[in-house]
Amino acid sequence: MLNENVEPKICPIAQSLSVLGDAWSMLILRDAHFGYTRFDQFRKSLSIAPTMLTKRLASLVNAGLLEKSSYSVHPPREEYILTRAGKDFLPVLFVLGDWGRKYNPSENPEQMTTFFDVENGTEIKPIVIDEVTGAKIGSRAMRAGD
Amino acid sequence: MLNENVEPKICPIAQSLSVLGDAWSMLILRDAHFGYTRFDQFRKSLSIAPTMLTKRLASLVNAGLLEKSSYSVHPPREEYILTRAGKDFLPVLFVLGDWGRKYNPSENPEQMTTFFDVENGTEIKPIVIDEVTGAKIGSRAMRAGD
Repeated sequence: MLNENVEPKICPIAQSLSVLGDAWSMLILRDAHFGYTRFDQFRKSLSIAPTMLTKRLASLVNAGLLEKSSYSVHPPREEYILTRAGKDFLPVLFVLGDWGRKYNPSENPEQMTTFFDVENGTEIKPIVIDEVTGAKIGSRAMRAGD
Repeated sequence: MLNENVEPKICPIAQSLSVLGDAWSMLILRDAHFGYTRFDQFRKSLSIAPTMLTKRLASLVNAGLLEKSSYSVHPPREEYILTRAGKDFLPVLFVLGDWGRKYNPSENPEQMTTFFDVENGTEIKPIVIDEVTGAKIGSRAMRAGD
């Protein structure tokens, strides 16, 4: 439990969610990390209504997570490429996925996607640590402050 | 970029978002980690419509992240306590907040909430690593697999 003296401050979590506070945006980012770049790839992968996908892609471009890039002049066609901010969202997706694997498994847990380190051949087990102390987040007392 | 051979598998990210795919749910969890437990505390903190808050709390209880606990018999009153699954969501919030701090800062970045390790006195810098290799997520090649 954190302390409560943070009300007048601006919450960085709320700042993230102001851009990303819905499932579609996060799933589009997931698919972009899988390598998808084109409207039809996202649409098929997500079974999302085209109007909704158009909105969400525009919102992600506007928020600086994706950028549009032309891949055909005649006819004009654009694809969506991850920016640095979009690429740096990958750890969030991994941690969110790890929670889901543990606490909201499917009926066939062995059917859930797993990821492996190519060089080492081992399954990736994402954990969140404080880079300064090396301790797992949540394992030591912390306080909000200035 | 990950490989694309994962379509038939169940995605653990989607599993998480099926429970948590909106901003209110995550902000309620944030407040629960701050120590809030009661309906009115969440309502005031979030400026959320009571009907929406009722729905989101019920959904989080149903999903096993919060549990109801009686704190008064006359009149009957209940509060909402984090379960183990809810407590284990803290690292997700930290990583999400860290992304927001970096890529979606407020106009006054120095006004954003920061967190400190109590024992060490240092600001917490959350990073996501693979527990097996110790490498930061995204810094090494990975593949989806069985």
